[in-house]
Amino acid sequence: MTTREKAQRGKRAAEACLNLSTQAKDEALAAIAAALREGEGAIMTANAADLADAESEGLPPPLLKRLRFDASKLREAVEGIEALRRLRDPVGRVLSARRLDRGLVLRQVSCPIGLVAMIFESRPDALVQMACLAAKSGNAVILKGGSEAARTNGALSGLIAPAGEAAGLPESWLSSLGTREEVAELFALEEFVDLIVPRGSKEFVARIKVLSRIPVLGHADGICHVYLHEDADPAMAAAIAVDSKAQYPAACNAAEVLLVHESFAALPAVAAALEAAGVSLEPDPRSAAALGREPVKMDDDWSVEYLDLRMAVKVVGSLGEAIAHINRYGSRHTDAIVARSREAAEAFMNGVDSASVYWNASTRFADGYRYGLGAEVGISTGKLHARGPVGLEGLCTYKWKLEGEGQVVADYASGARSFLHEDIRDGD
Amino acid sequence: MTTREKAQRGKRAAEACLNLSTQAKDEALAAIAAALREGEGAIMTANAADLADAESEGLPPPLLKRLRFDASKLREAVEGIEALRRLRDPVGRVLSARRLDRGLVLRQVSCPIGLVAMIFESRPDALVQMACLAAKSGNAVILKGGSEAARTNGALSGLIAPAGEAAGLPESWLSSLGTREEVAELFALEEFVDLIVPRGSKEFVARIKVLSRIPVLGHADGICHVYLHEDADPAMAAAIAVDSKAQYPAACNAAEVLLVHESFAALPAVAAALEAAGVSLEPDPRSAAALGREPVKMDDDWSVEYLDLRMAVKVVGSLGEAIAHINRYGSRHTDAIVARSREAAEAFMNGVDSASVYWNASTRFADGYRYGLGAEVGISTGKLHARGPVGLEGLCTYKWKLEGEGQVVADYASGARSFLHEDIRDGD
Repeated sequence: MTTREKAQRGKRAAEACLNLSTQAKDEALAAIAAALREGEGAIMTANAADLADAESEGLPPPLLKRLRFDASKLREAVEGIEALRRLRDPVGRVLSARRLDRGLVLRQVSCPIGLVAMIFESRPDALVQMACLAAKSGNAVILKGGSEAARTNGALSGLIAPAGEAAGLPESWLSSLGTREEVAELFALEEFVDLIVPRGSKEFVARIKVLSRIPVLGHADGICHVYLHEDADPAMAAAIAVDSKAQYPAACNAAEVLLVHESFAALPAVAAALEAAGVSLEPDPRSAAALGREPVKMDDDWSVEYLDLRMAVKVVGSLGEAIAHINRYGSRHTDAIVARSREAAEAFMNGVDSASVYWNASTRFADGYRYGLGAEVGISTGKLHARGPVGLEGLCTYKWKLEGEGQVVADYASGARSFLHEDIRDGD
Repeated sequence: MTTREKAQRGKRAAEACLNLSTQAKDEALAAIAAALREGEGAIMTANAADLADAESEGLPPPLLKRLRFDASKLREAVEGIEALRRLRDPVGRVLSARRLDRGLVLRQVSCPIGLVAMIFESRPDALVQMACLAAKSGNAVILKGGSEAARTNGALSGLIAPAGEAAGLPESWLSSLGTREEVAELFALEEFVDLIVPRGSKEFVARIKVLSRIPVLGHADGICHVYLHEDADPAMAAAIAVDSKAQYPAACNAAEVLLVHESFAALPAVAAALEAAGVSLEPDPRSAAALGREPVKMDDDWSVEYLDLRMAVKVVGSLGEAIAHINRYGSRHTDAIVARSREAAEAFMNGVDSASVYWNASTRFADGYRYGLGAEVGISTGKLHARGPVGLEGLCTYKWKLEGEGQVVADYASGARSFLHEDIRDGD
């Protein structure tokens, strides 16, 4: 089947999905979980073959680890499906309701987006998660995983797609692409594909954003900042700086740059706490002077995503300079201020043009689970549609449903009737 | 100034706008209204010069009419600004609030999008409206109007921009582009421009969607349908069909195609009502047979936007066929079913993948004012961000604001603390 045919069928499946009941979707998730449990042997065989090839091709150990899909990974994946089943249906929620006139009620109701392309790198557990997020939100999905996991992914989607269909999801609700060429073709099929959700390295996501006009839900960079205001509590400043940088440095919400107000006196103590946590500081000339050492950060490239224990340090003359720095060099992901002053915190949180803005909390909180969103689709640094950590709602849009009794506009244009425009709590 | 410099300054202005208070924005709107009233003479002179040129260049009368900006148009524009001032501030609304833990509160808060490019054809009143929608929603704006209205637009923006600045909006909150070449340059400046809002003909909007990767809020086509189900009330069917087609045929929400269930017996009566309203029917072979006349619509091109009193008619064998036809040939704008059965209506409203889906009401209701949205930014047929008639909320996005007391993720990872995840009504 050509990529175009797959996308066409996926589009048709997406239209059929629009009428799925909550019960049907949750039964499909149960059937998928059961099929994965029953298919354990086939999955393990396929994964062993992928692993053997990857080892003989000299794949580095961290990638091998991500590629491995053993019994415990399978159990986790199945538990994830059960948790997803228990979440509220994101479709059919009444977001607003308004009586336009007697017997004429307008509701803004959440609904699926349509056909979502989910493109991910090596981890096969991402396939299970993405397929089930799509099923729960009533979207059809086209998946493409990393080629080194081709057999594992094939085994997983070979179990998931028919199990979903047998339980009532429409034919072609899930399909897979095999090659990069097919992915490149898909990127041009705007008429069928409504959204791309990529999961992978920043280069991977940035490449997709350049290659396709289809909207992309995700983030490439995570250049996050912690700004220590002049009135910050020194102990809190140290704790938040350490957690934001060192708690898990490879995460996208880990901080890369520490901005410090020139009047904040406790920079040496904060630096000592960071270094005690293993952080290697890269102070600019002003912060180096405050620390009584040689500067490391001599260039003006403040958009480096270290993803390790290095951290740049910069002294700024004012809150406004900190905000301007973040808006210029940051990636609109997550930025925090440590301050006592509510006024300064409000100015920071309003003025920093990022998806998540924090006052006296670690940047590491930027995560769908920590936000209480249940399932996480990803973290978006785009400004439209969903922003920041995205739950199942990010795979939904809304439509306007108007229910009348035969009303026509001519009566309102003539003045024979007039609009009420009463907001209502729902109902009719 | 180059287009790039204008966009850069606009971006900086957008960042400065992030901290504007409701009062500051509403005072700016009052100042703009006053400046327009005081500048009436200059505006009229400029418009007279544009009109004289346009007449001597042989611009057709409907375009001349749209180009005219006289005292009554100015009064309407100023009244529109006063109405906009009275609307609730779309920025700073708490969309959701959740206590993650004691002393750790997450709020999802509406905020401006940033720098919005508004591109419109001849009508100068669109300039006033767009500039003021931007001011009310805290966005910076770059405007480009039709070249035939260049003097009028120059007079208007020459009054609006400084009046806004004098009242506290940031420098460069509004700038204008003069030439098509500048617009083409702007379309490539994704790093500065967050959204394009076009107003104009379908060709105009379609061209912009092809030319730029920047998200576009708007619609090109309005291929709307009225579907008469087998159990539709004949009088209601006739009234809704007539209003949807004939009440204002040039509107994007006017219906182009009448779909009729093969068991709906009253098609001849509906056709007679439409023809009595001046509609010229173009029946396909099956509907022509039901009407006892010759078919007109012989081809399979069901995506024609007539924008006049012609209307295609097609008989379908089932509700499902009607839905599939609309999803295939429609433009995701507005589609209506006339039916007695709630079940059929629900299936139609869920299954039709359009921004607005109606049961027993005219498609002509698809409009921001009729929806009670106050100001109208436009009607969007895209599926992400804002969909259907878009009010001021469409010029806003949201950010996540987290307020803590020094919380760090390490404590939750270690199990020393755990999340509460309590939804709260707002507040703290």
